[in-house]
Amino acid sequence: MADFNSSGKPLDFEKGFTIDFNMVNGLSSVKNTSKRLLSKVKSMFYDEEAAKKELEENGDRLVYEFHELPAPEHDGDLAFGMSIVYPGKVGNEYYMTKGHFHTILDTGEVYYCLSGHGYMMLESPEGDWSCQELIPGKAVYCPKRYAHRSINVSPHEVLRTFFVFRADAGHDYGTIEEKGYRHLLVEQDGEPAIIDNPNWKQ
Amino acid sequence: MADFNSSGKPLDFEKGFTIDFNMVNGLSSVKNTSKRLLSKVKSMFYDEEAAKKELEENGDRLVYEFHELPAPEHDGDLAFGMSIVYPGKVGNEYYMTKGHFHTILDTGEVYYCLSGHGYMMLESPEGDWSCQELIPGKAVYCPKRYAHRSINVSPHEVLRTFFVFRADAGHDYGTIEEKGYRHLLVEQDGEPAIIDNPNWKQ
Repeated sequence: MADFNSSGKPLDFEKGFTIDFNMVNGLSSVKNTSKRLLSKVKSMFYDEEAAKKELEENGDRLVYEFHELPAPEHDGDLAFGMSIVYPGKVGNEYYMTKGHFHTILDTGEVYYCLSGHGYMMLESPEGDWSCQELIPGKAVYCPKRYAHRSINVSPHEVLRTFFVFRADAGHDYGTIEEKGYRHLLVEQDGEPAIIDNPNWKQ
Repeated sequence: MADFNSSGKPLDFEKGFTIDFNMVNGLSSVKNTSKRLLSKVKSMFYDEEAAKKELEENGDRLVYEFHELPAPEHDGDLAFGMSIVYPGKVGNEYYMTKGHFHTILDTGEVYYCLSGHGYMMLESPEGDWSCQELIPGKAVYCPKRYAHRSINVSPHEVLRTFFVFRADAGHDYGTIEEKGYRHLLVEQDGEPAIIDNPNWKQ
């Protein structure tokens, strides 16, 4: 069995292509992931001391990784891949992605959860927010105008989600890096709980 | 465990929502599928006599079903759901979806295969085409301008794919209904093989 008459060019967004994202580990045999180590993303956690201590005591670790396919930045194309968030905490705050708005703010994103247990934190520039639970088989719609961040609340399992967004949407990481999210998901008495972000900047 | 601060409104494309698409059977607990019975789609198979005979001898059967979420028709929104194609043949032609262009031709679509064994048939208005194999864990990119049709080549397994497209793309089923695809995927000596469509209209 094989494809019939495919262009044979990998990741050919003009003619179409297939790409594997392993359903068990989330990885692809043809495309590496972008990796985010704790040392590089430590400032996204609210407890700076806990992050420093974690790095000193346990060394650097992979917090998350994801695929960036070279989709043309055209409003009719779609970018997609797998997002993989590892289990772990910094202090009482779960491992998560940095979170981002789209540069073209009026564009949504879809995630379909394949493994693990997590949440998607959504927040609009005006502060409207929700935090939606993800388990395998659940899709989450991140609406236009909302920043989105995946959070892994499982102590052992890896959170894997397949994502799709408009290829020209662009990533605005800066706003979250600068201001933070208004709400954080932390562990309290062994359960996920929402707290106000003490470091949030108006 | 539960969502935090979600609007509670089902399928709320403005505020965000989650929806389940069962990873085993592809169905959702909150949204029914649109169903395509053989009696309604029999004209998409090239062998009309075989379709008639099949209906007379074995009665009507479900060929495929899929979710249509009420996404706003906005170029920043995304529509998504599960497509489920059952195993079966009409003559030597495999069960498949009708296939469609997008009304806004310059918009792509992504499918991620969760179960089964199938192919995605792609064809541009000018006749450029390919037929790309799908197995679990494989995503296929249907590029802008290409009609796309899922085909189930397994004798027993159900083909399930999670799909995402721009919510305003629209479905042009008419062109394929009228002209057909230039190429068809049929079983020959127990294997999928490409043939020219004898009913194709210029």
